[in-house]
Amino acid sequence: MTTVALPSFAQIQDAAARIAPYARVTPVVRSDALDALAGAQLHFKCENLQRGGAFKFRGACNAVWALDEAAAARGVVTHSSGNHGTALALAAATRGIRAHVVVPEGAVRAKLEAIERAGAVLHRCAPTQAAREATTAQLVKDTGAVLVHPYADTQVMAGQGTIALELLAQASGLDVLVTPVGGGGLASGVAIAAHALQPELALYAAEPAGAADAARSLARGERVTDVVPDTLCDGLRALIGEPNLAALREHHIAVITVSDAETIAAMRLLWQELKLVVEVSSATAFAAILKDRERFVGRRVGVVLTGGNVDLDALPW
Amino acid sequence: MTTVALPSFAQIQDAAARIAPYARVTPVVRSDALDALAGAQLHFKCENLQRGGAFKFRGACNAVWALDEAAAARGVVTHSSGNHGTALALAAATRGIRAHVVVPEGAVRAKLEAIERAGAVLHRCAPTQAAREATTAQLVKDTGAVLVHPYADTQVMAGQGTIALELLAQASGLDVLVTPVGGGGLASGVAIAAHALQPELALYAAEPAGAADAARSLARGERVTDVVPDTLCDGLRALIGEPNLAALREHHIAVITVSDAETIAAMRLLWQELKLVVEVSSATAFAAILKDRERFVGRRVGVVLTGGNVDLDALPW
Repeated sequence: MTTVALPSFAQIQDAAARIAPYARVTPVVRSDALDALAGAQLHFKCENLQRGGAFKFRGACNAVWALDEAAAARGVVTHSSGNHGTALALAAATRGIRAHVVVPEGAVRAKLEAIERAGAVLHRCAPTQAAREATTAQLVKDTGAVLVHPYADTQVMAGQGTIALELLAQASGLDVLVTPVGGGGLASGVAIAAHALQPELALYAAEPAGAADAARSLARGERVTDVVPDTLCDGLRALIGEPNLAALREHHIAVITVSDAETIAAMRLLWQELKLVVEVSSATAFAAILKDRERFVGRRVGVVLTGGNVDLDALPW
Repeated sequence: MTTVALPSFAQIQDAAARIAPYARVTPVVRSDALDALAGAQLHFKCENLQRGGAFKFRGACNAVWALDEAAAARGVVTHSSGNHGTALALAAATRGIRAHVVVPEGAVRAKLEAIERAGAVLHRCAPTQAAREATTAQLVKDTGAVLVHPYADTQVMAGQGTIALELLAQASGLDVLVTPVGGGGLASGVAIAAHALQPELALYAAEPAGAADAARSLARGERVTDVVPDTLCDGLRALIGEPNLAALREHHIAVITVSDAETIAAMRLLWQELKLVVEVSSATAFAAILKDRERFVGRRVGVVLTGGNVDLDALPW
């Protein structure tokens, strides 16, 4: 595996300028009721209101606009049947270039339709990691399109880090930040930006107990790759990336694992009190705050609500 | 019936200053997908993110803080088992005064719990309009508390009008505003503020076909009071108030009626694309835009999303 560099703070600042014409500055919302439950002052950063319904647009948009003209002309490619696929399609459309998205047979039809509506060319493959990677590699070879990895990519991490720039400007005096962690693009980008601005900030990442490879990797001191994800949190099933794990270590990010039941209860509370549609993966962060209550009590906590793409006909409660 | 004066623009400006320490400046959100559906540029004012989950907090808060010390000390009273009841309770709490809320037997338990959680004293009565009014009158007599009517009240209308002040500042160059209409506190307050700032603005109000007393009142030229509401839109079952109807006429507000099926479809689209929890009554405005499409095509349209208090276990689709 090629070593992927973590972004510098300057690269995150560049990313903010690069995506500003296309990405939304999402609002930060509060709730007296949720503050009372947590015994803390919670500031929710609403990336469910980002274009494409998830923070992923930031990283994809930054990666697309960081390409030079010649590279951009050949298009971009990724393998993702989730939010990153849609985000890359939308980002490519802002630059008028082609996006190829490799999707496994059997992926959720609604998600595929979203990716197609966003303007990408779909390429189907067998539902294995090997088939995804082979199909993607072949596309890169055939078309010259540039691979934009969902999280182990410097410009993607830089784009996700812009969330912290916004949040720390919108909510002053935060003591703690909490994000979900899957592949770790968000957690690593946010950590680099946040610590550049406020070195004393405490950072936490919330992970489903059924896909706790980041927690286990930190505990063991090396990347654990034998985890078979078993969680409703479809956005957090990816294994933590190599550079992303390095960022977790370097920035002393503590991982809190939560059960799906805890996450679903947290999700329902977010809908009820914030009046926001957030997807189940997003609710892990608030679930972690309620679970490890004493770590957060009395503090000013920034919480990233990562996305809002849910099937309204199949709510988990 | 005592004549209730419509608020002046100056009273709406006063209301904005009065409620500023307590009410939220709610965000305005956009969606490419909904714009494409409507063929218009839609700016959604998110009063579902207001305190108490509905715009009603504005009017109640203004009414509470407009009272002189002596009157305030005796508390406030209203009859409402819906958003106005919660709003008045929350508003009274900001001033540290007592709120009495008269609720009919058989009202939805979740709503009563919300009103109690907000700190009000509940007073139960028989589920008739006569019993509500008698119980309220008795409370006013016994306690000296001031009646804060949900919509036929000058300070309440002034408070609701502050939405237009914010929205027109947040989204410049609007051609049209659309609100739902029930009792008409929102529609009248918004009309007065909006036309003071932009006299050429076109104003529409959306009403459930099953509670179309405002549309019928305008058509007949007098207030129609024999409508028996038959609609899922629980926030829009009230009959249009006398001063509110006068404001609809004076400001040439056209009423568009929509079926519950149209409203539910619109509600689902709002959840899906805006990632916001909005209650069914709120969705009438967007339903009206989709139904009477040609009135809005190519225009910049402000849409008030009035509230987000829903039963997550009983969604209407």
